[in-house]
Amino acid sequence: MPSRYLNFRCSVPWLILLLILVLEALFLIRFLFSFPDVTDIYSRSAFYPEFQDVSHMVIFGFGFFLMVLRRYGFSSTGFNFLLIVLGVQCSVLVEGLLVFLKAEQNESGLRSLAKAVMSTTAVVISTGAVLGKANPLQLIVMTLVELIVFHVSRCINGTFLKVQDSLPLMHVHLFGAYFGLAVASRFPEAPPGLDKNRSTPQSELFSVLGTVFVWVFWPSFNSILAESKKEAVLNTYFALAVSAVTAFMLSALTSRDGKFRMTHIHSAVLAGGVTISYTAHSIQQPWIAMILGLLGSVITILGSHCLQRCFNPALKLQDTSGVHFTFGLPAVLGAVAVVVLSVVKKGIDTQWNNLSSLGFMVLIDLAAFCQTISAALITGLITGLILNTKLLKTVPVSKYFDDQFYWEVSSKIVAD
Amino acid sequence: MPSRYLNFRCSVPWLILLLILVLEALFLIRFLFSFPDVTDIYSRSAFYPEFQDVSHMVIFGFGFFLMVLRRYGFSSTGFNFLLIVLGVQCSVLVEGLLVFLKAEQNESGLRSLAKAVMSTTAVVISTGAVLGKANPLQLIVMTLVELIVFHVSRCINGTFLKVQDSLPLMHVHLFGAYFGLAVASRFPEAPPGLDKNRSTPQSELFSVLGTVFVWVFWPSFNSILAESKKEAVLNTYFALAVSAVTAFMLSALTSRDGKFRMTHIHSAVLAGGVTISYTAHSIQQPWIAMILGLLGSVITILGSHCLQRCFNPALKLQDTSGVHFTFGLPAVLGAVAVVVLSVVKKGIDTQWNNLSSLGFMVLIDLAAFCQTISAALITGLITGLILNTKLLKTVPVSKYFDDQFYWEVSSKIVAD
Amino acid sequence: MPSRYLNFRCSVPWLILLLILVLEALFLIRFLFSFPDVTDIYSRSAFYPEFQDVSHMVIFGFGFFLMVLRRYGFSSTGFNFLLIVLGVQCSVLVEGLLVFLKAEQNESGLRSLAKAVMSTTAVVISTGAVLGKANPLQLIVMTLVELIVFHVSRCINGTFLKVQDSLPLMHVHLFGAYFGLAVASRFPEAPPGLDKNRSTPQSELFSVLGTVFVWVFWPSFNSILAESKKEAVLNTYFALAVSAVTAFMLSALTSRDGKFRMTHIHSAVLAGGVTISYTAHSIQQPWIAMILGLLGSVITILGSHCLQRCFNPALKLQDTSGVHFTFGLPAVLGAVAVVVLSVVKKGIDTQWNNLSSLGFMVLIDLAAFCQTISAALITGLITGLILNTKLLKTVPVSKYFDDQFYWEVSSKIVAD
Repeated sequence: MPSRYLNFRCSVPWLILLLILVLEALFLIRFLFSFPDVTDIYSRSAFYPEFQDVSHMVIFGFGFFLMVLRRYGFSSTGFNFLLIVLGVQCSVLVEGLLVFLKAEQNESGLRSLAKAVMSTTAVVISTGAVLGKANPLQLIVMTLVELIVFHVSRCINGTFLKVQDSLPLMHVHLFGAYFGLAVASRFPEAPPGLDKNRSTPQSELFSVLGTVFVWVFWPSFNSILAESKKEAVLNTYFALAVSAVTAFMLSALTSRDGKFRMTHIHSAVLAGGVTISYTAHSIQQPWIAMILGLLGSVITILGSHCLQRCFNPALKLQDTSGVHFTFGLPAVLGAVAVVVLSVVKKGIDTQWNNLSSLGFMVLIDLAAFCQTISAALITGLITGLILNTKLLKTVPVSKYFDDQFYWEVSSKIVAD
Repeated sequence: MPSRYLNFRCSVPWLILLLILVLEALFLIRFLFSFPDVTDIYSRSAFYPEFQDVSHMVIFGFGFFLMVLRRYGFSSTGFNFLLIVLGVQCSVLVEGLLVFLKAEQNESGLRSLAKAVMSTTAVVISTGAVLGKANPLQLIVMTLVELIVFHVSRCINGTFLKVQDSLPLMHVHLFGAYFGLAVASRFPEAPPGLDKNRSTPQSELFSVLGTVFVWVFWPSFNSILAESKKEAVLNTYFALAVSAVTAFMLSALTSRDGKFRMTHIHSAVLAGGVTISYTAHSIQQPWIAMILGLLGSVITILGSHCLQRCFNPALKLQDTSGVHFTFGLPAVLGAVAVVVLSVVKKGIDTQWNNLSSLGFMVLIDLAAFCQTISAALITGLITGLILNTKLLKTVPVSKYFDDQFYWEVSSKIVAD
Repeated sequence: MPSRYLNFRCSVPWLILLLILVLEALFLIRFLFSFPDVTDIYSRSAFYPEFQDVSHMVIFGFGFFLMVLRRYGFSSTGFNFLLIVLGVQCSVLVEGLLVFLKAEQNESGLRSLAKAVMSTTAVVISTGAVLGKANPLQLIVMTLVELIVFHVSRCINGTFLKVQDSLPLMHVHLFGAYFGLAVASRFPEAPPGLDKNRSTPQSELFSVLGTVFVWVFWPSFNSILAESKKEAVLNTYFALAVSAVTAFMLSALTSRDGKFRMTHIHSAVLAGGVTISYTAHSIQQPWIAMILGLLGSVITILGSHCLQRCFNPALKLQDTSGVHFTFGLPAVLGAVAVVVLSVVKKGIDTQWNNLSSLGFMVLIDLAAFCQTISAALITGLITGLILNTKLLKTVPVSKYFDDQFYWEVSSKIVAD
């Protein structure tokens, strides 16, 4: 039962080949112009296990986390894998270029690679918003645009707004979620009768598997670039623990019959990790981290109700795997938390005397977050418009959420 | 097809909310009274990867290890996750309280967290015994009671019987198994015709996945608190390897037609790790570890035959996932081994002159194990009685082993 | 529905028991003759996480990687597990014996165990070639023979050809693939009508899960014994990333309708890791690693087409999970790469003056690879002949690829 609608043979492979050649050439140029670094400030033995954790979390965890649709398993894991390996290479180059332009010292290889892997989280999150609707061609273009814009936005935050080093990278959830939403708003809606975007217990179990992986490795994600790693690990762990417990509570409260709903658990157990991501290294007492985890989980589950009933239908928006409430809202909450906590801390330190300096600090922090969100929304909308031109072979809505459109699957499964 | 029997909306969420608030308050109090520790005896870089291993093993490995029942996948992984994150927070607090009462120095954060994660293994094992029969309300109450009793029992072993520091924590398998059995004995039996407690190849594959995870991470579990870590890792690895090989041998010997049986493999590959847990750090030669692994596997598979045919029917006991022979019997064997090995070692050191001191040592060791088992059995029985009062909404036996009772599952799957 | 063809009760358990006793005795003898090592050149903290990665990759990753056949899931993971734990113990002993014969200093425990785990990769790869055709008895015999021959071949490379220390172990992919092919060529072909060697989306998803694990942990595999670990990690990562991207490109180019084919992705994403394995620690610039990854992926996918159409039918060879193009061809390419790169490097260093020394170096390198391949092919053929004698109860071709032949599976699944 070959599909006669589209044929990607004339586009996807050649685009990938072009990308490989360009990346190769750029890597060659990069290493002709820059010198290999001799000293490594992070001794490898202490850094490598966490790098592995983050790499595992992004490639494996998110790949299976996205596997909720019953007929979209191959594409969820496969395309996620493709986009990450492309994105990492692209990220290393873009960051190398920015470092070169700013004439800063080059970073050590493994640290630079870790940053690149973390940046691709934005792509993974955005993919979640258009899951099942975008074809590989569109996804590859989106990946390239998104990573370049994200690194530029990060660079603006670091250079002009003087946000400290590791923080702008944590904007990755915020950026990914709103970029993905803006892109998704330009895609035509799936017809209401289409039942391919349901999940089965089978696909949900694989998704639980991915979620647990992401959960377990989240402390590594938040601590890998932090200076006070121990605090970052402990605070993230407590925030995640509380948000997982809260997720069960709210799921039973909000669903019919007081039963648990797996999609709630998926989203809300991770909310704590997103919420705490900006502040994990600076919080001194676990109970603050726990409150943030609690609030993150609450905002996710309430958000999932409000958004799916009011916001999304109004904007004709379909957010396939709910990235808005899973990553977007907790990240906004985290942004508020970082402002409040730093104001309280500085206020106590200065005994609330230097209010103008406090106000300036709040302004800078807010400016950084607004810059990230607006950059994400604007470039996301533009990218969404570009992706839906005829050039990129948009998928007909009847073929949404279907592995068969992209993968050779034996016809027997179709009947199943 | 909503269930009209019970509705957990009025109980589970509020219990969880109460717990969250209490935990929050206790954490707040704890950090008001104790000072944050400045120096960390374990440098983080060396400790963190193993902490991640243990966390991964307990949350992911055991969660999927328990997924043997064909209609109970969501509950097995979901409730396991809920109980662990609750249990860890509870454990940190209980241990902090005990440390505070004994006026000892506070431990570093990550080490304390690792101990808490290890303690929750007891809860996971006990859950296995009542798998599919207890509702979340009962499980949460059981978790709280079990962890408090376990920490008190551990404290008695450490304070009054002067068992050395890291050993009492290893009683976790012994305690968990017998506590779980005692609780399970108070639950009404499942009707014989109920076929929901069968497994399917699908669910068994997920269970294999979890088992392999637990197997791979077990050396980290046994070595994380040990002083001579290298020995602990090597001995555990060899014991596990031999018990895995023996499991295949005995499975083919004892089953019909000489075929392998997956449930045998599940249980027996882990037996070596349980058996060696008390002695992993002190054994000097791998062949001793290998003999312990062999014996552990033998006792598990023979135990599974004897218990399921004689012991369980006599006591009208249903041990859903066989924790008695998977964790209980190997732990008893390990307890015997620790006595024998320490007697032999001390005997050789003193050339069998100081027999009275030897006898005293044996008595102390045996007393510690008996104290653990009897504490587990007695409090387990009491907990079982409490759990089966009407207040906690016991599940009707016809609804045993069914995800639909607790989770929103699409009705299509029911027909499947 | 018990099978009446064969009964393994009289053979497999007793063979395993015999092996356990022999291994026990040998371990006892080994530790009577050798002294425990006091100093450990690798501090444990830096080495242990990577050991865990490799152990996880071999046991879990490869176990699920092989799970492509729809009715062979239990056997793929179960037998893989059995063979690895047997193989590791056997490897430790064989290597200990060789070290003893060469009168070298004994290596530290964890490093020796890591080498043993890496050696068993050869067994896993060979198993892939006869997947579904060999019974456990044959697999156990094959494991023992293969590991002994591999260690002898490695020892010849190290002692007589003076190949540097960690390189001969990397011949493991080459050896495993050609040994497996030679063994598989002696097995009778499966009848063409048999549809049990198809895959289902379900089994392919589990296989993807395993593949991603192997992919993520491959940098640890290549770097664990290397001296310049940072380079080994970075080069392996880049080679794997490029080969993953190339895999998607070529899959869309070569398949019908320009769709992706999951089996291509499986094989080709790993090709980069195999190709780079000999040279990962010595390459100084990522773009060289990337080109090797690209070539590895190309040779795998083109190889999969040519071999399956021309080579395999001509030799009446059935390579169930395609180890020839997944591991064999990329390893040959890697062998060519190591010669070319070392010639270029040495040539530049000596300004192409000392051509006779260059030629000698090339000869030595080629001799080492030819020795490995010929040892693998010859002993593989002999092993294949031995395995197909009546003594080892060959499986009738109608019972190929069937779990039911070895495992107790509930009869309901058969109908499915």
